[in-house]
Amino acid sequence: MSILIKDGILVDANDSIKGDLLIEDGRIIKAAAKIDTSEAKQVLDAKGCYVMPGGIDPHCHMQLPFMGTVASDDFFTGTRAALAGGTTTQIDFIVPNPEQSMLDALKQWSGWAEKACADYSFHMAVTWWGDKTAAEMDEIVNKQGINSFKHFMAYKNAIMVNDEIMMNSFIQSRELGAICLIHAENGELVARKQEELLAQGITGPEGHPLSRPPEVEGEAANRAIVFADEVGVPVYIVHTSCKPAVEAISRARRKGMCVIGEALIGHLLVDESVYWNEDWEFAAAHVMSPPFRAKGHQEVLWDSINNGDLSVLGTDHCVFMHKQKANGKGDFTKIPNGTNGLQDRMHLFWNFGVNTGRINMNQFVALTSTNAARIFNMYPQKGSLIEGTDADVVVWDPKAERTISVKEHLQNVDFNVFEGTKVTGINRWTIANGKIVFADGKANVEEGAGKFVARKPFAPMFDNLRTRVKVRQPQAVARR
Amino acid sequence: MSILIKDGILVDANDSIKGDLLIEDGRIIKAAAKIDTSEAKQVLDAKGCYVMPGGIDPHCHMQLPFMGTVASDDFFTGTRAALAGGTTTQIDFIVPNPEQSMLDALKQWSGWAEKACADYSFHMAVTWWGDKTAAEMDEIVNKQGINSFKHFMAYKNAIMVNDEIMMNSFIQSRELGAICLIHAENGELVARKQEELLAQGITGPEGHPLSRPPEVEGEAANRAIVFADEVGVPVYIVHTSCKPAVEAISRARRKGMCVIGEALIGHLLVDESVYWNEDWEFAAAHVMSPPFRAKGHQEVLWDSINNGDLSVLGTDHCVFMHKQKANGKGDFTKIPNGTNGLQDRMHLFWNFGVNTGRINMNQFVALTSTNAARIFNMYPQKGSLIEGTDADVVVWDPKAERTISVKEHLQNVDFNVFEGTKVTGINRWTIANGKIVFADGKANVEEGAGKFVARKPFAPMFDNLRTRVKVRQPQAVARR
Amino acid sequence: MSILIKDGILVDANDSIKGDLLIEDGRIIKAAAKIDTSEAKQVLDAKGCYVMPGGIDPHCHMQLPFMGTVASDDFFTGTRAALAGGTTTQIDFIVPNPEQSMLDALKQWSGWAEKACADYSFHMAVTWWGDKTAAEMDEIVNKQGINSFKHFMAYKNAIMVNDEIMMNSFIQSRELGAICLIHAENGELVARKQEELLAQGITGPEGHPLSRPPEVEGEAANRAIVFADEVGVPVYIVHTSCKPAVEAISRARRKGMCVIGEALIGHLLVDESVYWNEDWEFAAAHVMSPPFRAKGHQEVLWDSINNGDLSVLGTDHCVFMHKQKANGKGDFTKIPNGTNGLQDRMHLFWNFGVNTGRINMNQFVALTSTNAARIFNMYPQKGSLIEGTDADVVVWDPKAERTISVKEHLQNVDFNVFEGTKVTGINRWTIANGKIVFADGKANVEEGAGKFVARKPFAPMFDNLRTRVKVRQPQAVARR
Amino acid sequence: MSILIKDGILVDANDSIKGDLLIEDGRIIKAAAKIDTSEAKQVLDAKGCYVMPGGIDPHCHMQLPFMGTVASDDFFTGTRAALAGGTTTQIDFIVPNPEQSMLDALKQWSGWAEKACADYSFHMAVTWWGDKTAAEMDEIVNKQGINSFKHFMAYKNAIMVNDEIMMNSFIQSRELGAICLIHAENGELVARKQEELLAQGITGPEGHPLSRPPEVEGEAANRAIVFADEVGVPVYIVHTSCKPAVEAISRARRKGMCVIGEALIGHLLVDESVYWNEDWEFAAAHVMSPPFRAKGHQEVLWDSINNGDLSVLGTDHCVFMHKQKANGKGDFTKIPNGTNGLQDRMHLFWNFGVNTGRINMNQFVALTSTNAARIFNMYPQKGSLIEGTDADVVVWDPKAERTISVKEHLQNVDFNVFEGTKVTGINRWTIANGKIVFADGKANVEEGAGKFVARKPFAPMFDNLRTRVKVRQPQAVARR
Repeated sequence: MSILIKDGILVDANDSIKGDLLIEDGRIIKAAAKIDTSEAKQVLDAKGCYVMPGGIDPHCHMQLPFMGTVASDDFFTGTRAALAGGTTTQIDFIVPNPEQSMLDALKQWSGWAEKACADYSFHMAVTWWGDKTAAEMDEIVNKQGINSFKHFMAYKNAIMVNDEIMMNSFIQSRELGAICLIHAENGELVARKQEELLAQGITGPEGHPLSRPPEVEGEAANRAIVFADEVGVPVYIVHTSCKPAVEAISRARRKGMCVIGEALIGHLLVDESVYWNEDWEFAAAHVMSPPFRAKGHQEVLWDSINNGDLSVLGTDHCVFMHKQKANGKGDFTKIPNGTNGLQDRMHLFWNFGVNTGRINMNQFVALTSTNAARIFNMYPQKGSLIEGTDADVVVWDPKAERTISVKEHLQNVDFNVFEGTKVTGINRWTIANGKIVFADGKANVEEGAGKFVARKPFAPMFDNLRTRVKVRQPQAVARR
Repeated sequence: MSILIKDGILVDANDSIKGDLLIEDGRIIKAAAKIDTSEAKQVLDAKGCYVMPGGIDPHCHMQLPFMGTVASDDFFTGTRAALAGGTTTQIDFIVPNPEQSMLDALKQWSGWAEKACADYSFHMAVTWWGDKTAAEMDEIVNKQGINSFKHFMAYKNAIMVNDEIMMNSFIQSRELGAICLIHAENGELVARKQEELLAQGITGPEGHPLSRPPEVEGEAANRAIVFADEVGVPVYIVHTSCKPAVEAISRARRKGMCVIGEALIGHLLVDESVYWNEDWEFAAAHVMSPPFRAKGHQEVLWDSINNGDLSVLGTDHCVFMHKQKANGKGDFTKIPNGTNGLQDRMHLFWNFGVNTGRINMNQFVALTSTNAARIFNMYPQKGSLIEGTDADVVVWDPKAERTISVKEHLQNVDFNVFEGTKVTGINRWTIANGKIVFADGKANVEEGAGKFVARKPFAPMFDNLRTRVKVRQPQAVARR
Repeated sequence: MSILIKDGILVDANDSIKGDLLIEDGRIIKAAAKIDTSEAKQVLDAKGCYVMPGGIDPHCHMQLPFMGTVASDDFFTGTRAALAGGTTTQIDFIVPNPEQSMLDALKQWSGWAEKACADYSFHMAVTWWGDKTAAEMDEIVNKQGINSFKHFMAYKNAIMVNDEIMMNSFIQSRELGAICLIHAENGELVARKQEELLAQGITGPEGHPLSRPPEVEGEAANRAIVFADEVGVPVYIVHTSCKPAVEAISRARRKGMCVIGEALIGHLLVDESVYWNEDWEFAAAHVMSPPFRAKGHQEVLWDSINNGDLSVLGTDHCVFMHKQKANGKGDFTKIPNGTNGLQDRMHLFWNFGVNTGRINMNQFVALTSTNAARIFNMYPQKGSLIEGTDADVVVWDPKAERTISVKEHLQNVDFNVFEGTKVTGINRWTIANGKIVFADGKANVEEGAGKFVARKPFAPMFDNLRTRVKVRQPQAVARR
Repeated sequence: MSILIKDGILVDANDSIKGDLLIEDGRIIKAAAKIDTSEAKQVLDAKGCYVMPGGIDPHCHMQLPFMGTVASDDFFTGTRAALAGGTTTQIDFIVPNPEQSMLDALKQWSGWAEKACADYSFHMAVTWWGDKTAAEMDEIVNKQGINSFKHFMAYKNAIMVNDEIMMNSFIQSRELGAICLIHAENGELVARKQEELLAQGITGPEGHPLSRPPEVEGEAANRAIVFADEVGVPVYIVHTSCKPAVEAISRARRKGMCVIGEALIGHLLVDESVYWNEDWEFAAAHVMSPPFRAKGHQEVLWDSINNGDLSVLGTDHCVFMHKQKANGKGDFTKIPNGTNGLQDRMHLFWNFGVNTGRINMNQFVALTSTNAARIFNMYPQKGSLIEGTDADVVVWDPKAERTISVKEHLQNVDFNVFEGTKVTGINRWTIANGKIVFADGKANVEEGAGKFVARKPFAPMFDNLRTRVKVRQPQAVARR
């Protein structure tokens, strides 16, 4: 089965060129100025459209067991929503319980993921440290196709890691050629703020942002970055939401440190006023960590996206129904953390990014797809339009519109934090592994069609860091 | 005549992929994993080598009439040296005398350039403002293939422009889709410092850096950037040499402003101690503006190259013989300003950049070639390995060595500021417009083979700035 | 006539100590823990009150001829309002017309000031440069008791100075031991913005802030600071209103540069939304330069006051009646620039500064009085409670209240930009030169009682800058 | 016994005024322009000299049991050296062993201190946390006259505190009105660096700075500051040695946070090259934490002293003989940490600070004395020349000289890190509690004459922080 995308503009992270794209057997076969229609069975007329690599969401959680409940989008509904939104690959997080083996957890998640209709990969969380952890990390990297480890600096008395565990993991990651991901919030500070707020009688959702002020995130980001730089391992700060965290990243990058910053679409567009809404259900529906921030932070995030300090756009999609959120009535610390975005990310980013001139189309592709592919070492298989690679493609109609709403979305949750937002510029078609899985507003997916994407260590992107570490090794002084 | 470059690694600004490259009739015909040797007349064995786009030097001056003398490399010797060093395109500056017409000056420079053996283009300097200047800028852009205007904020009472002229030019450049280049030094401050130093009896070359301290550059960079941002035109700071200037660029970029920073190879490697050398001739041979800086500035420059705040590497190659430099005996303000680099730039940058892990190979290509091509709108014709574009290619042998010296260089000058530096990693072959012009240490050039590269306005790279300017237009308030 | 202030807390810029204060013949005679009531004819019961040095407003304009009209508060009404608000000394600006002699202008201003009821001094503006300017500056400093020169970087084609004049003046100021004041806005940028806005049909007061965006102020502040640092003269940035300007000051101070930042009470409290008010008269009444800024800037100003980057609080009091403002109907560039504050400054600063914990009482005194006295070299005569110095004192009742309004104020203007603000903590008594000039809400002033305060050059506060300049003089290299 | 200091210039943290100073019964009785010689038994001729408050060293360790040995200056020899150097009060640190009661440790230290010949006070270290710690802190503050708690973020597995203990202590300190001191180095990072370096065969003193790079200090400073700001307690970073730590302090202060930075005289003048000295004994003699830094850091420290980001100058005097240092032969982690400075601090600071124009005399007093007195709440008893306060005074001869050397110093250690430095400007007399204890180069001290200085909580200096905390308390949202 072959598909020819005709007369569009081929847009990748670097260039925008008029041309056609031929797909066959799940691969991109040819990209050229002109390809004859006779070469394909099916021709898609992409006149006036942009043809781009399918999106990669580097940060989401399907059916995550969390805070006593389970996220309501599973690997089927979640990947379906993703495809509808132009995202053809997503990276989920395996989060072992403390004391649980990584391999055991991997088995669990792999089982859950069997019904995925889009390709996916996994990050592995380091949530505790035991005698076998180092060896398990080795197996995870060298046999299981996972090259990224996540560290939660928050969630004290649960999955939070202290400095010692973080150092253990960073050093081992350096040896294995893995990258270290960081949830940057100081868990000790958050825990004490929560205590104090509850003691003061602040029990509603406004307690959530009050217990996690921006400096709490900035501190953790700064600490993790210093650790990584001293160890000599690449570090990736997930869901950077505020000025202090951006500044920590930016300072480090100014000093030549190897730091990647990830933004979430939600933090770019939603502000913290939602938590002071009089309607508990509305306020609670926005609870996620780090929380949405005061408006002033958003412009900083956008500027950082433009200047490269933030170079990846994710969602942290992790959704809970109102009735799940209700667990936290009377105690904001019990509201399950998480909001949506998987289906909406690319639409919103185009509308508020490209249409406003904050970014150009190539940055759009870089941020939503290519950069993640490079960082997590699945480039050019994913994130490119290079011949021979996976045929994950979106055909983007810059004039088409969508009004985002819980009424029309495919995300399995009864709320949408972007409710009512009208966007201009959306995908007309999504092609995943050579198949049209979304066309003109309709998803046409197959359960189980998605496959695990194995990712090797030592991503070329970080070669020069490794050279640097070697070249700068200190020497002992010869003494009298 | 076709050439096949076999078994190398094709390296561009984004990717490094094993493959072959076929060249014919001055064009790159094919880049593929494997191309049959039968397809070409000549086969170059690139095993163990990197095949990269030829270098672009965005900043040099051949036979420039300056400070009462003329730079000693002309368009023949200069372009020959460039080709020997892997640079296949260079952009020179047309600098009209005050009161001279831009078109008239263009004619002069075009005449001088006829003997060039490598491709070249021109920036046009705005050195004064008259009734016809705006119209001439229009013709320069729309008929003469030049889309970049240079502004000297230094050289008071000569070619320095004041704020008013700078604004005139920036506004007109925005309308024309041109980019504004800035020599950032506050000319008033320099002039007063020179006066004071001479009055204090400091007449030797050490007076040169003392009269142009780093803050003088930082101030001017900051001012030009603010002007450009308020006008809404892209701005490009040439020869960024020091921390204050880098910080001005970095601050602006953090705020999402559209600023490009250029570094020179010399500032990365030579420090200001040379000016205090007891040997006048040695010290004077290093006089250029901005001067070489105290060592601390170099690490900042390298970090900025790594993080993107500086994204182009040039030379400001503008050489004078010892006897010309001697004009400034007894008065440092009369030492002709300029040093070499055209032949040495890529060798040094590889050795001190790639070999040390400060940058990777793709950054090397981006900084020495592709970024300049994009910014000055000659991409992908120049700066890429894309099929159909000009066959300007270097085959880089990472193990080959060169010891830079006035004794072996092709630069027409009796001094080399990098004298004695041994570098590992140099070009084995340089191919320009499909012809082998340098092979295994020998140049084989043809006078007049180089052609003018016309560059159109409205470089796509700045599309989003233009969108932003439109979207943010203010509106009048309706009043009672 | 002697006055004993009994049982208050004596607060100066450093300490807060319970005690009494005895005044006689216009001088502070004694400050001690306990002074017997028999020592004075009149006893003021200051129980529960703070006894502080009278305020100094370093920045105001009485009856200034400006933009085709004359500011409506004259030296009588203005100083009366000042005394009512606790300010016992004010420094006005002599602004010679271009081509006018400084001495001639001094004569004019001195005549106008004869009716002042509070002490005053003058800054002298350098608005042009002629053959005699340097000599006149010398006379101004050494014979006329003025040690501070003001430079307008804005108001093109009127009183704006270019880089050359600024350098002339800075160098001469350094020689004379004077301090350089800067109105920091890039006049060229403002002029072009005004043109563009008018051309776009934006003629109302909203054009005012649009033509003077924050970066325009930041640029100028940065430039003046670099000039001053290179010359080696103290520099004082007046009316710092926004983040870019604060950052320029802060950066310089981080590098050890000698820079003083002045804030205005208006910029701390009023934001730019006023200019978009539908009522032209209301909007125009707020027109001053630099304009009031977006809210985000205010917190930066307060933080800078707390950390010392801004160390003086002024008003730039320069008022115009509605009918004068009306000159700018249809063209915002013709609205006379200026707003009130002389009577309200200390009340507002206490209420929004001390009451909120942003500053403490000693900082209050430092910012409203002592720092200005030191900087402009009238300390300890002014700005202190030291025995033997001028008896300029306020007795501050932290529980007393005032609601600021045009209906009750003594400022001669039919608008108040702080209208309706209720403040807690105001002066119960103001004593100027030993006389009670304000008591329990009533002014009791005498026309002509105010005297010119002569200020000598070489303020001790800047001694170390002068040492530094000497110690760091460069030396010529001995050459072979 | 009364002493009249005649004809000097009285210099305190604010002013420099010609005058005389009368001392009687251990108190300053009078400071006036002229005091009759008949009023005193002894007259000191201070012509050409500066009369200043005696120095306060906020940071030193007498006979500290540390790293398996005991610091060689005890409370007698140490305070004697201090008096010789003009320091009349010093604050030592009580460092309980883990599990040891604070009160018990206080008893130990108090016993040791009985032989002090100068006044002293104590900081209490929080080195572990138990059920009674909070209550003991209460007693320490409210009954034992100690208002400052020290926290070591380094020295893992010894006295290092983790985030939880730090939060416990900060919250309790806020309630008690105490200030939190921080040794800012990330102990986890240091420990891992030490391991790695030893494993690489780097066992000499150069391993010391390599294991404690600047970012390790910057990280810890940043973290402690964020904690303190979120809690609302004043924080004081001891021995700030490098750019990252200064920047953490400076960033926080720019945001209006309440942070005090302390510098050490050693870090201002000695650079890290000493650790690479071929002579082990020499290198080891310089081992202290944080280590001496690369030269570039020193200028940043000086600038920060000038701009207020660092506002206290200490020594961290903690000396060990060569034979004690020798414990670390073959393993740099075992070299006892500590160097001298108690006798040399004020001499060096005057010479390199005042004589060069980096600071003025009032800053000298503020940094060496008054600021510490205010911060630790013993002002004006200490740190001032106010009538009625302790007669701790130095008479400073700006022309007198000293060449610092182990051969002449009174510090009980066989090395001096400032060996051979010639300083101009030293104390001719030191007066402590009204007695002349040092005159013209000779100490004349009495064992046991020094007394403990009790310090109350809630230093007035931090009143506005406490107001701010109150005013900004969050409120719960009323919900439907």
